[in-house]
Amino acid sequence: MKALKERILKDGRCLAGGILKVDKFINHQMDPILMKSMAVEFVRRFANKKINKILTIEASGIAPAILVGYLLELPVVFAKKRKPSTMNDMFVTEVFSFTKNKSYTVCVSKEFLQPGDKVLFIDDFLANGNAAKGMIDLVQQAGAELLGMGFLVEKAFQNGGEELRKTGIQVESLAIIESLDNCEIKIR
Amino acid sequence: MKALKERILKDGRCLAGGILKVDKFINHQMDPILMKSMAVEFVRRFANKKINKILTIEASGIAPAILVGYLLELPVVFAKKRKPSTMNDMFVTEVFSFTKNKSYTVCVSKEFLQPGDKVLFIDDFLANGNAAKGMIDLVQQAGAELLGMGFLVEKAFQNGGEELRKTGIQVESLAIIESLDNCEIKIR
Repeated sequence: MKALKERILKDGRCLAGGILKVDKFINHQMDPILMKSMAVEFVRRFANKKINKILTIEASGIAPAILVGYLLELPVVFAKKRKPSTMNDMFVTEVFSFTKNKSYTVCVSKEFLQPGDKVLFIDDFLANGNAAKGMIDLVQQAGAELLGMGFLVEKAFQNGGEELRKTGIQVESLAIIESLDNCEIKIR
Repeated sequence: MKALKERILKDGRCLAGGILKVDKFINHQMDPILMKSMAVEFVRRFANKKINKILTIEASGIAPAILVGYLLELPVVFAKKRKPSTMNDMFVTEVFSFTKNKSYTVCVSKEFLQPGDKVLFIDDFLANGNAAKGMIDLVQQAGAELLGMGFLVEKAFQNGGEELRKTGIQVESLAIIESLDNCEIKIR
């Protein structure tokens, strides 16, 4: 998606260790106009799928997901990164974060992910794909069906995208980063 | 706001200890159509304020905040509940959570909250107002100005609303819960 790629080249910053900082417009300060354009692009790419629910994971996935849900007039569920004290009956999975070098628990209430649900998962980043694999697990536990996964930014030099596409699920990334070698941002 | 009050009476649930569960449409599963209507109502209520930035706090504040930012075409910043490893120069404050009975750190990069910024803070709940007071502190540290605070749901039987209004900042809540005594939801 052209507008996003241009914005990454303009405002993205590369840190040591293959980190792409997009906190000027995606995951700390957010540009709602760009965010809405990206949501429209997801609607276009998943136009042939009969979706009835958007799933995301807190916190940076919420903004693009709510805008996709708004456009499609569908409920949006965000998975929580720890068990809320007021939630009992839920699906739980473990996600390993390379960035933080530790595992965390992700959960969704059984009330909001049910057999027969046709789910589109939306998130900001696809790198190793661990959060996405956790979502696949939650959707399977629920007996629901995952029809697509949409990411704002994919790092092609990590293996998440390749692994997810092998499952046969439609995976769409709006900008694919080929490499961050020598702190130079190369976009496919 | 009528649509929100009706939805709370229809889908809200009261738990022991003065807890109002709205996870069917606000803070776990979200209704994007209602969320957009609430954002429009905030735009109306703060129409006389010259705002240049929306501030919120992860995670449940992000959805209403991004929609307000989208309508007003303004950047939206969400404060983070722990210090990201890739963020250095930031404003930090402590917030005590009654629900979880512990304090947590909230931070915003100095890049995204600056002197002269005219800020509207948006969040889902106003109870004791501790998160809101933390945001007042962050805005003051930045030398920015807080022009308004908008909440989806306020619990009038806790003292946050009263304390915030004493500061002179315009505080708007779209539904005000008078009491949850005997697990009956009473709305003003």
